Amino acid sequence: MSKGTRTRELILEEAVALGSQLGLEGLSIGSLASRLGLSKSGLFAHFGSKEGLQVLTLEQAQRRFQQEVFASALGELPGLPRLRRLFSNWLGWVERDLQGGCLMLAASSEYDDRPGAVRDLLVAGQRELRGAIAKAIRQAIDAGQLAPHTDPWQLGFEIVGIVLATHHDHRLLGDARSRARANDAFERLIQAFRPPS
Amino acid sequence: MSKGTRTRELILEEAVALGSQLGLEGLSIGSLASRLGLSKSGLFAHFGSKEGLQVLTLEQAQRRFQQEVFASALGELPGLPRLRRLFSNWLGWVERDLQGGCLMLAASSEYDDRPGAVRDLLVAGQRELRGAIAKAIRQAIDAGQLAPHTDPWQLGFEIVGIVLATHHDHRLLGDARSRARANDAFERLIQAFRPPS
Repeated sequence: MSKGTRTRELILEEAVALGSQLGLEGLSIGSLASRLGLSKSGLFAHFGSKEGLQVLTLEQAQRRFQQEVFASALGELPGLPRLRRLFSNWLGWVERDLQGGCLMLAASSEYDDRPGAVRDLLVAGQRELRGAIAKAIRQAIDAGQLAPHTDPWQLGFEIVGIVLATHHDHRLLGDARSRARANDAFERLIQAFRPPS
Repeated sequence: MSKGTRTRELILEEAVALGSQLGLEGLSIGSLASRLGLSKSGLFAHFGSKEGLQVLTLEQAQRRFQQEVFASALGELPGLPRLRRLFSNWLGWVERDLQGGCLMLAASSEYDDRPGAVRDLLVAGQRELRGAIAKAIRQAIDAGQLAPHTDPWQLGFEIVGIVLATHHDHRLLGDARSRARANDAFERLIQAFRPPS
């Protein structure tokens, strides 16, 4: 990595951390500059606008999500092993100690009714994630691990619900049992879609 | 209702609408005053501080939630009928066309890592809701409608997940099928906890 690329990466990592804490809408070039001890004008030249900062920050968080949640799941066999790994990686992601929780989930609440580049990116990221989950489910059906009538989008929707409840209970209620509850829910859900033996 | 009480109520309703749109953190006495065409100093005298405004707004939204989600469910028989009604009332609440979606869910993302009066109120409201769900589940167990080994908190957790996924998909993805998916998920979930026949 060149020194420029490395600096850029460090700035974006700080922006993700700050955005997770304050919300993307609360993230500003001024607050980031003071956190980094850099000049506001230098950062402004880099990002161009507040929306530019928000978009690049969200893209950085999405890239990390892809690496931590998707990429490592691709090492598992297609089908149920990969679906399980996607699920546990995602739970790991939402339960991380990064202050502020998942940037994308927080931003979904902030931007669900604010049209623009940030919302479009969030929707695209969510569609990609849902597509990856549906694909793993389809591969599990093809491998005879799930029943042929399984609706990948329905099952995906329910998996998303388990992750959202875990994130919510872990962060708002500080409930240490949420991970165990999530695993129980996931296993029962998979069981309900097993092929008749 | 006295004229004073009625004015107070109208102001709070506007505050809930504005807070749902901008987030509670984005809600300010200034923005509310300009929406209502009232003087900022008059509203300031009423609410005392930004936190005072946030707390009273959240309490108003929680009162409405109690009326619309809890109170009407109490008209159903204890057990599964009441649990079903709680679920469908809650889905109705998160899918309403109130711009900005559910104030409490949006605020959960905003305040999950900000200690203070707002977070405490959110936690108290969520615990009350979970308690009501667990109670309806226990009554369903007592009535023989759910299996004796059913864990009310586990089943409650999973019901919450379905609602969160519905809210998320409805608001961020504009997915019209989310209500049907939610109902399918709920019925399968209840089926899994039915007593052995």
